[in-house]
Amino acid sequence: MCLKCDFTIHAAQHHFGWDNSFTPVLRTEPGRSIAFECNDASAGQLTAASTTADVATLDFSLINPVTGPVFVEGAEPGDILKVSIHGFTPSGFGWTANIPGFGLLAEQFTDPALKLWTYDARTLDPALFSDIARVPLKPFAGTIGVALATPGLHSIVPPRRVGGNMDIRDLAAGTVLYLPVEVPGALFSIGDTHAAQGDGEVCGTAIESPMNLTLTLDLIKQTPLETPRFTTPGPVTRHLDGAGYEVTTGIGPDLMEGAKAAVSRMIDLLCAEHGLSATDAYMLCSVAGDLRISCIVDKPNWLMSFYFPRIVFD
Amino acid sequence: MCLKCDFTIHAAQHHFGWDNSFTPVLRTEPGRSIAFECNDASAGQLTAASTTADVATLDFSLINPVTGPVFVEGAEPGDILKVSIHGFTPSGFGWTANIPGFGLLAEQFTDPALKLWTYDARTLDPALFSDIARVPLKPFAGTIGVALATPGLHSIVPPRRVGGNMDIRDLAAGTVLYLPVEVPGALFSIGDTHAAQGDGEVCGTAIESPMNLTLTLDLIKQTPLETPRFTTPGPVTRHLDGAGYEVTTGIGPDLMEGAKAAVSRMIDLLCAEHGLSATDAYMLCSVAGDLRISCIVDKPNWLMSFYFPRIVFD
Repeated sequence: MCLKCDFTIHAAQHHFGWDNSFTPVLRTEPGRSIAFECNDASAGQLTAASTTADVATLDFSLINPVTGPVFVEGAEPGDILKVSIHGFTPSGFGWTANIPGFGLLAEQFTDPALKLWTYDARTLDPALFSDIARVPLKPFAGTIGVALATPGLHSIVPPRRVGGNMDIRDLAAGTVLYLPVEVPGALFSIGDTHAAQGDGEVCGTAIESPMNLTLTLDLIKQTPLETPRFTTPGPVTRHLDGAGYEVTTGIGPDLMEGAKAAVSRMIDLLCAEHGLSATDAYMLCSVAGDLRISCIVDKPNWLMSFYFPRIVFD
Repeated sequence: MCLKCDFTIHAAQHHFGWDNSFTPVLRTEPGRSIAFECNDASAGQLTAASTTADVATLDFSLINPVTGPVFVEGAEPGDILKVSIHGFTPSGFGWTANIPGFGLLAEQFTDPALKLWTYDARTLDPALFSDIARVPLKPFAGTIGVALATPGLHSIVPPRRVGGNMDIRDLAAGTVLYLPVEVPGALFSIGDTHAAQGDGEVCGTAIESPMNLTLTLDLIKQTPLETPRFTTPGPVTRHLDGAGYEVTTGIGPDLMEGAKAAVSRMIDLLCAEHGLSATDAYMLCSVAGDLRISCIVDKPNWLMSFYFPRIVFD
């Protein structure tokens, strides 16, 4: 519960998937501050007592609950919903998993894996991984979106033009996100909170962590917007860039293959230099490393890079 | 000429394309410091007196000269060439062009365009663009590589497993680059110096700028390396991240289409907010904005982001 907020929406007020027929859990004027309690992406199936065996038996019908939806009075198709993200209250518990069939290197990493995290929710000090690595934290919500105009139930997994499971690492406190409204009231929901994630979220999961957050929803009337955009108030990587980066590359005519190669080579490098298992290195890349496109114009080959922050091993 | 270096290789000592039969301009033991004078990517065809008409008549057989090659004594196939990049002496002149048929949005931007730059080579203060934008500078070499084992002349344009035209924005002073050696002596060359470039180099050119640089070449014997990797000694974006970013997205199942969409939307945003022409915005994105992959695992849609640093308009 947020004492300074106008409304609180509790974690039990969640839904699975997107459907513009869902009944709003709150109707509000624009401009009011709202607290959201967010479940983790497993909806509580994975806990501090979980083991790898629990990853193999996850119920996917319960994956990625989002808290909401909120009906914003006056919101109409063609408007923009302006989401001002004020802050996060993390829980201190998190998990990262390799879920078979999911992730950039799913063909290579076919076995389930689970890493449990505890972190200091007050200081947000870097979180320990295998006693040799420390992962800088930056809480954000992986899934933020509004309902599609298209009727019916839509999977929660893919991001779409109205947002959703975007998994953008920089949608952190202070960021303003703009979403296109497609249905009356917008029907805004949020969840899938992460304590840390690198660009790409390469193993398919971040530091998945239940969390509360506060935000304000405003409207910009009848303004075209094709897909989400956002504004960050300041730098986005200073929590992890202080010691520089190790960078591997993937070079070739296919962006996806290049991305896979760059990440695979970083896994090899981390294993060789720090004695990690390949699966641990893969999960560490997902929570701390950044996938980038260094060059996309030198035909016929493009150059994909994977940036791993050296501070993790400092 | 570098008084503190062991050798200087002059700009006239350049070649076009890669060919392992090229005669070395220098044979040296590993560990010696070498100064390279580098031509701009037009080999001097574009100057401070050039106009857009000169872009349309560029002689592509003279594109992207590289200074070298240097034969490193003792280098053998299977070794790694370790390139320690010490520093750059920029010229103060640069150009950015839209060259028809080249660039991420070549289908949309079919007319030639040219932007000439002057910058303070001593202070490296941000460079003015259209009186309303200031682009932070960070000199680096776009093309760094060694000869391929495969005989014959290979185009300079695409990057390959031995490096080449990688256009990696972060190969700046202090960076250590590792390249796989494929031929005796490695045959190292460098050029295509840039005063500034964003990740992706989306319009196809950076702030192309003749420049001198110094580096040291060392060998790591008989160590596997599939493609180039590098280590940065510190942060890579602090010259431009201070005021945060505007970010646009491209969402869908194809990384290339997502990249095009994200950049197109940033061009639209810059035009709307700052009154730029689309072509100017495109060139500005290329020299200052970063293409990133925010999420590559939420099947079937991926989320590409284009980050434009707000400091450019501060």
